[in-house]
Amino acid sequence: MNVKSNAQPKVDMAEKLVYSFGDGSAEGKANMKNLLGGKGANLAEMCALGLPVPPGFTITTEVCTAYYAGNKKLPGVLETQVKMALSQVEKKAGCVFGDGANPLLVSVRSGARASMPGMMDTVLNLGLNDITVKALAKNTGNERFAYDSYRRFIQMYSDVVLGLDHYHFEDMLQQKKSDHDIELDTGLTADDLKDLVSQYKEKVQEELKKPFPENVHEQLWGAIRAVFDSWMNPRAQTYRKLHDIPAAWGTAVTVQSMVFGNMGDDCATGVAFTRNPSTGEKKYYGEFLINAQGEDVVAGIRTPQTLADMPQVMPQVYKQLTGVFDRLEAHYRDMQDIEFTIQNNKLWMLQTRNGKRTAAAAVKAAVDMVKERLIDKKEAIRRIDPLSLDQLLHPTLDPDAKKTVLATGLPASPGAASGKVVFTAEAAEIMGLEHKEKVILVRIETSPEDIHGMHAAQGILTARGGMTSHAAVVARGMGKPCVSGAGTLAIDYAKKELKVVQHTIREGDIITINGSTGEVMLGEIPTVQPALSGDFETLMSWADDTRTLKIRTNAETPMDAEAAKRFGAEGIGLCRTEHMFFDGERITAMREMIVAKDTAGRKQALAKLLPMQREDFIQLFTIMKGLPVTIRLLDPPLHEFLPHTEEDIKQVAKSAGVSAELVRQRAHELKEQNPMLGHRGCRLGITYPEIYEMQAQAIFEAAAEVMDPSPSRRGWREAPGDGGASGNALAPAPFPKGEGFKVIPEIMIPLVMVPKELELLRSLVDRVAAEVMRKTGAQISYLVGTMIELPRSCLRAGDIVPFAEFFSFGTNDLTQTTLGISRDDSASFIEIYRQKGIVEHDPFVTLDQSGVGELIQIAVERGRKARPGLKVGICGEHGGDPASIRFCQKAGLDYVSCSPYRVPVARLAAAQAALEK
Amino acid sequence: MNVKSNAQPKVDMAEKLVYSFGDGSAEGKANMKNLLGGKGANLAEMCALGLPVPPGFTITTEVCTAYYAGNKKLPGVLETQVKMALSQVEKKAGCVFGDGANPLLVSVRSGARASMPGMMDTVLNLGLNDITVKALAKNTGNERFAYDSYRRFIQMYSDVVLGLDHYHFEDMLQQKKSDHDIELDTGLTADDLKDLVSQYKEKVQEELKKPFPENVHEQLWGAIRAVFDSWMNPRAQTYRKLHDIPAAWGTAVTVQSMVFGNMGDDCATGVAFTRNPSTGEKKYYGEFLINAQGEDVVAGIRTPQTLADMPQVMPQVYKQLTGVFDRLEAHYRDMQDIEFTIQNNKLWMLQTRNGKRTAAAAVKAAVDMVKERLIDKKEAIRRIDPLSLDQLLHPTLDPDAKKTVLATGLPASPGAASGKVVFTAEAAEIMGLEHKEKVILVRIETSPEDIHGMHAAQGILTARGGMTSHAAVVARGMGKPCVSGAGTLAIDYAKKELKVVQHTIREGDIITINGSTGEVMLGEIPTVQPALSGDFETLMSWADDTRTLKIRTNAETPMDAEAAKRFGAEGIGLCRTEHMFFDGERITAMREMIVAKDTAGRKQALAKLLPMQREDFIQLFTIMKGLPVTIRLLDPPLHEFLPHTEEDIKQVAKSAGVSAELVRQRAHELKEQNPMLGHRGCRLGITYPEIYEMQAQAIFEAAAEVMDPSPSRRGWREAPGDGGASGNALAPAPFPKGEGFKVIPEIMIPLVMVPKELELLRSLVDRVAAEVMRKTGAQISYLVGTMIELPRSCLRAGDIVPFAEFFSFGTNDLTQTTLGISRDDSASFIEIYRQKGIVEHDPFVTLDQSGVGELIQIAVERGRKARPGLKVGICGEHGGDPASIRFCQKAGLDYVSCSPYRVPVARLAAAQAALEK
Repeated sequence: MNVKSNAQPKVDMAEKLVYSFGDGSAEGKANMKNLLGGKGANLAEMCALGLPVPPGFTITTEVCTAYYAGNKKLPGVLETQVKMALSQVEKKAGCVFGDGANPLLVSVRSGARASMPGMMDTVLNLGLNDITVKALAKNTGNERFAYDSYRRFIQMYSDVVLGLDHYHFEDMLQQKKSDHDIELDTGLTADDLKDLVSQYKEKVQEELKKPFPENVHEQLWGAIRAVFDSWMNPRAQTYRKLHDIPAAWGTAVTVQSMVFGNMGDDCATGVAFTRNPSTGEKKYYGEFLINAQGEDVVAGIRTPQTLADMPQVMPQVYKQLTGVFDRLEAHYRDMQDIEFTIQNNKLWMLQTRNGKRTAAAAVKAAVDMVKERLIDKKEAIRRIDPLSLDQLLHPTLDPDAKKTVLATGLPASPGAASGKVVFTAEAAEIMGLEHKEKVILVRIETSPEDIHGMHAAQGILTARGGMTSHAAVVARGMGKPCVSGAGTLAIDYAKKELKVVQHTIREGDIITINGSTGEVMLGEIPTVQPALSGDFETLMSWADDTRTLKIRTNAETPMDAEAAKRFGAEGIGLCRTEHMFFDGERITAMREMIVAKDTAGRKQALAKLLPMQREDFIQLFTIMKGLPVTIRLLDPPLHEFLPHTEEDIKQVAKSAGVSAELVRQRAHELKEQNPMLGHRGCRLGITYPEIYEMQAQAIFEAAAEVMDPSPSRRGWREAPGDGGASGNALAPAPFPKGEGFKVIPEIMIPLVMVPKELELLRSLVDRVAAEVMRKTGAQISYLVGTMIELPRSCLRAGDIVPFAEFFSFGTNDLTQTTLGISRDDSASFIEIYRQKGIVEHDPFVTLDQSGVGELIQIAVERGRKARPGLKVGICGEHGGDPASIRFCQKAGLDYVSCSPYRVPVARLAAAQAALEK
Repeated sequence: MNVKSNAQPKVDMAEKLVYSFGDGSAEGKANMKNLLGGKGANLAEMCALGLPVPPGFTITTEVCTAYYAGNKKLPGVLETQVKMALSQVEKKAGCVFGDGANPLLVSVRSGARASMPGMMDTVLNLGLNDITVKALAKNTGNERFAYDSYRRFIQMYSDVVLGLDHYHFEDMLQQKKSDHDIELDTGLTADDLKDLVSQYKEKVQEELKKPFPENVHEQLWGAIRAVFDSWMNPRAQTYRKLHDIPAAWGTAVTVQSMVFGNMGDDCATGVAFTRNPSTGEKKYYGEFLINAQGEDVVAGIRTPQTLADMPQVMPQVYKQLTGVFDRLEAHYRDMQDIEFTIQNNKLWMLQTRNGKRTAAAAVKAAVDMVKERLIDKKEAIRRIDPLSLDQLLHPTLDPDAKKTVLATGLPASPGAASGKVVFTAEAAEIMGLEHKEKVILVRIETSPEDIHGMHAAQGILTARGGMTSHAAVVARGMGKPCVSGAGTLAIDYAKKELKVVQHTIREGDIITINGSTGEVMLGEIPTVQPALSGDFETLMSWADDTRTLKIRTNAETPMDAEAAKRFGAEGIGLCRTEHMFFDGERITAMREMIVAKDTAGRKQALAKLLPMQREDFIQLFTIMKGLPVTIRLLDPPLHEFLPHTEEDIKQVAKSAGVSAELVRQRAHELKEQNPMLGHRGCRLGITYPEIYEMQAQAIFEAAAEVMDPSPSRRGWREAPGDGGASGNALAPAPFPKGEGFKVIPEIMIPLVMVPKELELLRSLVDRVAAEVMRKTGAQISYLVGTMIELPRSCLRAGDIVPFAEFFSFGTNDLTQTTLGISRDDSASFIEIYRQKGIVEHDPFVTLDQSGVGELIQIAVERGRKARPGLKVGICGEHGGDPASIRFCQKAGLDYVSCSPYRVPVARLAAAQAALEK
């Protein structure tokens, strides 16, 4: 009855578990990161390059995996292999581990495949005991140094390996300093330190009821185990979860002979980048500290000098160091992040790795390196994380500013913004547009009715909702910062205040949100405006030359369309017409339509919407100037448009000429248990054909207008009060070639479930098209297609495609139906699912390839079988997600469509996907 | 851009469009119903059998189809073929159409593939004009008869063909009778009738500005077209929609020489069944009327005699007639519904067809015919409509009772019931259980909280919700009548009244509902109780011997389980544990659990539920006595259990020891946009494992109990207050073989989306099982499986199946997700979809085979590939639908599970499906 799922990895007895390096040769290489971790692999590589690296060896990550699989037992053969490796280190270093005359001291460090800075444990100066410390003192001629090292070792080892909290030792150190009335550790003499060493050891005996280990081999194995153990400590686990690092990867352990930057003024320790990691500028960048160990730099007691000072202080070493920089960058063909130590004027390399950098630096460095012929364009494209481009498009917080973080929500739409808190869309509009103040709209959650307020605000903050909540999606579309789902905020609309921890924020108080991190901060934090550099344009042009997927945008407002075009969109892939109905008088006409008693009443209300809708499309067509524009006919359930407040209800009743009671009743009738699966999409087009008729008419009349904008051609203006396509009996003269330009509207019917729906609705569209063409004399080419959003329509794609000239996958809804997860409600469990490893990613952010993806593949295959060359795209939120774009490339799609600010991300991701092929 | 979808059927010029019959031979046959309609095919068959049938011919249904496809033009070759056929009729009848001396008169009748009684038009006595009427008078020696026939013909033809409403003629007839002060038509003399004929003809001239056609060929073609036209009249369209008859079938037209039952006292007309159509008894059954035409029987002016009188009145003809009955029944091997006319002591057969019958009659006749060796068992099984068996299981309304229909809703759960109207579940309980009154629970819609009220009521009536709404599903489960979605009812809970048309029904007023028809009636209508006959058992036993699918039931109460077992269920396929939590103190404990602050609080509340839940399972296991019982762990979102009224909120707060504010807040937190796609199913098991732990513990402890009911063995009773499975350190003695019996619980994890969910939860179940076994010493065998309800889990079945010992398709939810339709919200458009032909059936009633069905097939295939022999069933509402059962058989499922009252339906449908294979 039991099912075993986790195969237990075992270590082969004959397997090589330990890799040595030092003295110009190494058993490992840079490309063995999976086995040796980043640190171990790069140390080996540097050794092989002949760079000065203290000798050592690396125990592989497979040992770590075996350690956890085998109930924390280390493989038996490890001991032998470590012994052999250690004796090689002794040979290379010319000293012996635990030797009373010439002792070898080592560091024991972690090193995983991916960098996890500071998450795991390290032990330095290992190999010291009461005997070897004396030899160290003698050999270095520096007793104070030797006992300081010993003191540090006991403290670190006791903390990391023996589990004795370091405050025990800090207290004693502090006591010693105050006894002598000194402030800095450096004021302590060798005798003070000797005394501290014996106090420390007594403390260990007292707390653990056993002495501090004098046996250096016992010390070594204790430290190795401790490093492996630290792979599973809570902070490492959290870090891995945040960075999608599997626990199965494990860490390697590198044991390396110690070098000392704190043996005198001809010693130093430092870190450096081969280029500026903030800007990408080709200039050495880093800092160093004379007579210090790495931990002193971290402790921040002394301020390090910048690398620019080094030529004065240590000219010889500086020359050697920059030579190493150049060598490493040429070798790795990437900017390096380097750690080094100088011991008695001798340079030792302790680490090199590809340097982390800002998006701006990444772009500049990549473009520069192509110019320098260090890498080719393909490599430049591959090197940039597409998602990081977002940083370049939005204002960012000044990294040096101080901040008080009130809460952390989800980073729902990138960028930072400050402004006065408002709690309603109306207040946002009044303060934002009329009083010209910067505001942050704070809502428990937003709805389509809040859109005008979102437009007026600098940023949006919600207490509820995920990365794909209404607030998040709309804000990303607008390119405005948004933090969603900040659950600790207690928002009280009535009192117009927001409580969080001990703070109470009232309307008008200023806050700052960072939509890239999810942070909500008190007061105004200065921001830095981005500037798109020429390097960015260069990189994008390379991406455009490389990719095969077209990139369109999801946009319905002129502002969004213009932004998207600026960012390189090649058309609109999704214009959600419903978003056009929430503003001002439109919402009233829309509501009138919904509460109308019959078709005639609905038509009357729709006639009011027609000219506004037509103007919308004229604007969009004009902005996109000949690029394809895909327009989705009305999709959401009607009740989304209905009024909630008594005042609004009365207004609608008055304007529609019905009783308030009727409006309330209609609202009640339209209420649904599961609106996502309710009376929406083309179901509305079937039951209320007049709505789609009006929309089709507006589209075709707009197309006619932009094709020839001369006023006399406008068929609909010739017949005053003519709200319908029919009724104008005078056939106009043939449509001439005017100053306009051609548009080919792509009309998209949403939520098709069975072929017949599309058959009926496309004949409706064809009929309206014919009427408009007759009336205006224009010849309009257009496509009719469908949004594939249901598992059934994927399966029946072959039956649907006879009526569809294109498919566009609405992957938001397709994910909801395929997985049976409501986007609005998943927040309550999806995070627990991620924590428990049940799902890797939020399926609304990254496409579920093995579920939703298979359905997409089925639909593409069956659709193209019945209609070869069918145009296929995707227009869900996934259209801007690199992993999902990679899938779209593989699935053979023609284009992806994403929110305007994701267009550059998509362009780059599509280029990377094309390179993978 | 246009897509043509409807191929236009054309008639091949060389095709045979007309089939003749008469005088012992025929071109058609009984199996040509599709071409000749039921009437035409059976007339041909009777001819070929040598029975006395007036000669005639049938124009095929293909002509009808061509007529509509070709803009109501008849194919050119038809005229020639009709001419030839008519001349054959003349030859056989020995008279000539339109002849002044010996005229042929004909009837022109419709006849579709399926019987559509009274829906289309008929013309009799065609061929009469001012000349032929005289010949008819002379040849029959009955002038009155001839002119009466002529009068009838003009009236009928004018109505049917010329579109002149028959009241014009009725008025004149009435006037004539009152002029002569007579009451019956028979009082009119030949001269009166002659006068009427000329008045009729004047009326035609006056109204239509042209004379009544004297040309008999013009008459004939007019009638043929009129019959074709009547295929599309509104009442025929409505009938087709109600009976799922495609418009494309078309009707045939049969032209047949007239015979007269009204030429004197040696004439008669009659209808008969070869067996009793109400009871199935093998006894001739019918009635006849001397000296009358068919329409006189319909008019109901004279009371017909029963067939039992005929031996006295017409002994010779009776003998001949019963000979024909026997011949026809032997030939068709089924009960026949026969029309005949006797003209001057000569018998003529006008129609035979398989007789409509009640379910009881169908069963008896089928079983009898097997005994008579007329048919075999397979045929008997095939002959019964499985859905009709429902009639046998529920009380039915007395068909003779008078009734005032207030409204018509959906026939949601069959059977009839009367009772006092109550508007709340509480009132139902008080009046129904305490006062022992019959009540009908009337709600706008029901929710799980109403279940106790539904139990207490005789029947349920709702204003909202479809055939698969909560009310409908639960009522069918309980076997109680239910009418749902009676939208015209205006229910006012506050006033405790219900308004419909001009009636106001108050609490306590009596109504009757008929869940088989959807009717809601005023007052109490007498009902007839059904009795399951021995024939029923016989038929069922044949079905059981034939079928390969197992039939289980969906049941959670002892009452349901017992009913299902009585009806032949072979186990429980779906025990919805959540239904067990709504009663009395359980709901309070459940609510306590939901509002608890932490895991400890939840466990405390769950400990209260444990003994009750254990008792539930003990009862179910005991009833099912060794048959499999599949238990679904908690499935619905938690907010379904939360209190709505302030009083309930306070009670929960008190009992849980929290503030009312907290309860309200928790309810608000749990509210979801789309609960169907929300935090439910195994998502609850993942986030609140303690719930599933409690349920698993209850199941295993119950299993241990029934396996050995000796009190000393009950581990959980030994440790008082021990709410958990652990905590009892004393290992009991090995479990002995007691007086109990073995049960193998099948534990079903709902709504699995990814394999990991099932992996985690089955290990939870395994752990609890081990604990219970350790504590009780019992060895319990059990299965763990999953409900497949999401498209994703169908696609990933191969990955899920390593953790599942069985699959059960939850086709309700799978339909919702695959089609993107909420069961609760589909009513607003699904009816329009049916009307427009977009969907054929409600997909919640009959499985959508090409969408949901393909996913099921994929899941079965992938599941069995990875785990050969995997047990697979279905437990949605579709489990009781014959068409869906046929699909399940084809898809290779092992069992279907349906509501208790559907079990006999499923047994028979499964047998039919097995026979189809």
